[in-house]
Amino acid sequence: MTVKVMLWGWGLMNPICAKYVLQKGGDVVLVVDRNASRVGKTTDAEVAIAATKPDICILATRSTLKELKDPILTCVSKGVSVVTIAEEATYPITTAKAIVEEIDKVAKANNAAVFGSGYSEWAWVVLPAAVAGAAANVQKVVGLSSYNVNDYGSALCEKHGVGLSAAEFQAKISSQASTAGPSYAWSASEGLANTLGFTVTKMTQEFQPTFADVPVYCDVLKRTLEVGTCTGMAAKATVQTAEGTEIIFSTVGKVYAPGDEDCNDWEIFGDPAKITLKMPVPPTVETTCASAVNRIPQILAGPAGYITSKDLGAIHYIAGKFPEVHRT
Amino acid sequence: MTVKVMLWGWGLMNPICAKYVLQKGGDVVLVVDRNASRVGKTTDAEVAIAATKPDICILATRSTLKELKDPILTCVSKGVSVVTIAEEATYPITTAKAIVEEIDKVAKANNAAVFGSGYSEWAWVVLPAAVAGAAANVQKVVGLSSYNVNDYGSALCEKHGVGLSAAEFQAKISSQASTAGPSYAWSASEGLANTLGFTVTKMTQEFQPTFADVPVYCDVLKRTLEVGTCTGMAAKATVQTAEGTEIIFSTVGKVYAPGDEDCNDWEIFGDPAKITLKMPVPPTVETTCASAVNRIPQILAGPAGYITSKDLGAIHYIAGKFPEVHRT
Repeated sequence: MTVKVMLWGWGLMNPICAKYVLQKGGDVVLVVDRNASRVGKTTDAEVAIAATKPDICILATRSTLKELKDPILTCVSKGVSVVTIAEEATYPITTAKAIVEEIDKVAKANNAAVFGSGYSEWAWVVLPAAVAGAAANVQKVVGLSSYNVNDYGSALCEKHGVGLSAAEFQAKISSQASTAGPSYAWSASEGLANTLGFTVTKMTQEFQPTFADVPVYCDVLKRTLEVGTCTGMAAKATVQTAEGTEIIFSTVGKVYAPGDEDCNDWEIFGDPAKITLKMPVPPTVETTCASAVNRIPQILAGPAGYITSKDLGAIHYIAGKFPEVHRT
Repeated sequence: MTVKVMLWGWGLMNPICAKYVLQKGGDVVLVVDRNASRVGKTTDAEVAIAATKPDICILATRSTLKELKDPILTCVSKGVSVVTIAEEATYPITTAKAIVEEIDKVAKANNAAVFGSGYSEWAWVVLPAAVAGAAANVQKVVGLSSYNVNDYGSALCEKHGVGLSAAEFQAKISSQASTAGPSYAWSASEGLANTLGFTVTKMTQEFQPTFADVPVYCDVLKRTLEVGTCTGMAAKATVQTAEGTEIIFSTVGKVYAPGDEDCNDWEIFGDPAKITLKMPVPPTVETTCASAVNRIPQILAGPAGYITSKDLGAIHYIAGKFPEVHRT
């Protein structure tokens, strides 16, 4: 039976997801966007869901569970499962506890599942967990993922403190780390700890400014950042576990200097002494969309409720069409 | 209930496996080795198995299914599952078809499973498959894994053509590729194709000599290899599939020149255009043993018969003790 997919949000990501769904033999039966004119389809989601009966919704709008609670509940209350690329969805079990519990209850009552995938799940949870599969003892995990703020808009630039002095960064950004809500690094590292079977005892996050050794030009602010001016920031999450294992993960977003490039690097220390994974210039957009689409058969065949990476294991490449799946 | 483990072979690997099994709360109930005096235990495996009733045997003796048929049948006929680090066991379904079918039948009749893990499964199948999980379309996979023949004995040196001239290598080694049996590269790349869901239509392997730009000293042969003399070889397997995807995997074993080091590198081409995984200086011995041990709960909970990576997915790190598992 053809997998019927609904897309919620029609920005950068879902048009690519739509292409991948069609390549896999799925059908895009519904697109919902706040700007209905973009896609010429309804924004009255409940009515449209009842009419089109999708199996699953790819939700690609915002980053936090608080922002996504309403669209997720709209879907699962109609029995439509959800895969979202929202970064917090990678592991929101503690950071959005009440919302997750409410979603979980409605999803289970309607035999639907909710899952967070995308680059943040694949590159920051699935891959380091696959590497750790060949470790006898993991004592420390150190991850680093970097992106160029020049690739994004002014809102992200501002959030990353680009152009601030060190003192301004401290006052406006570093000092707010404890109340800023979970960074991408927080959600991913907590998700990794959970997937590896650790019991998290303490988590902290720090926001640290980045500086370049040479003046760098910021395309977004349209000005050169002199040496000593913040080029962006690292969000660093530190996870302590009952097993004594520590996970330290930093996502770095900055205006790149010559030679800087995207990375997704992981080091696992223990026994063996060290295992290193390096992923130079990872294609974040395509892997975000493909991992969400490739997760669809696993989500449709898996348990109902709010589920995470630990429940589904690694993401399976789909050679050809979506396989036939049913939740039992 | 404590997982009861039997070790078959007591060379470099199984003492490390034994340590990991004990760390995970398992019990080593039996060691079998052709040189019984090494471990002071019986070599009469059948009697010892009946007396000690292991759940699973870690078999670490030889590399091919032909060599391992008898010990595997001895285990599974008594209902003891087997995990082996034999390289062909990663995917012997076509290269040792008759043996696999015989083992599969006996294993199923006795509710036991047989599985190949170790570095060759983890580094060459599980990891590239996890990377491909974020691809929408895989058109080509290129893998390269390298090791220093100085780390091994004279038999391996000879097999790799170390010290031969180019003409001697061609006559003695390259020309034998089609009758040499499956190389490690063959078993791994066929296993990867299967795990990714491809239908293999054609496979070939080539043995190519390696040369250094500078004279290198061979510790095993105790002589300097001049420029133009073979320092070792690459076994290169090429897989064609019905889906049009090509997998090219080379395992390179050579006398290292300054700057050479072990690697496990994969490139996946298609959509996205390219995903790169690099693993500098992978710890092969420890990851071989840990991946075999970490696979134990999955094997004991999985289907009976001869099973492969596709049946079990990624290898799960075990934080703490073996979980309680039962085959249903």
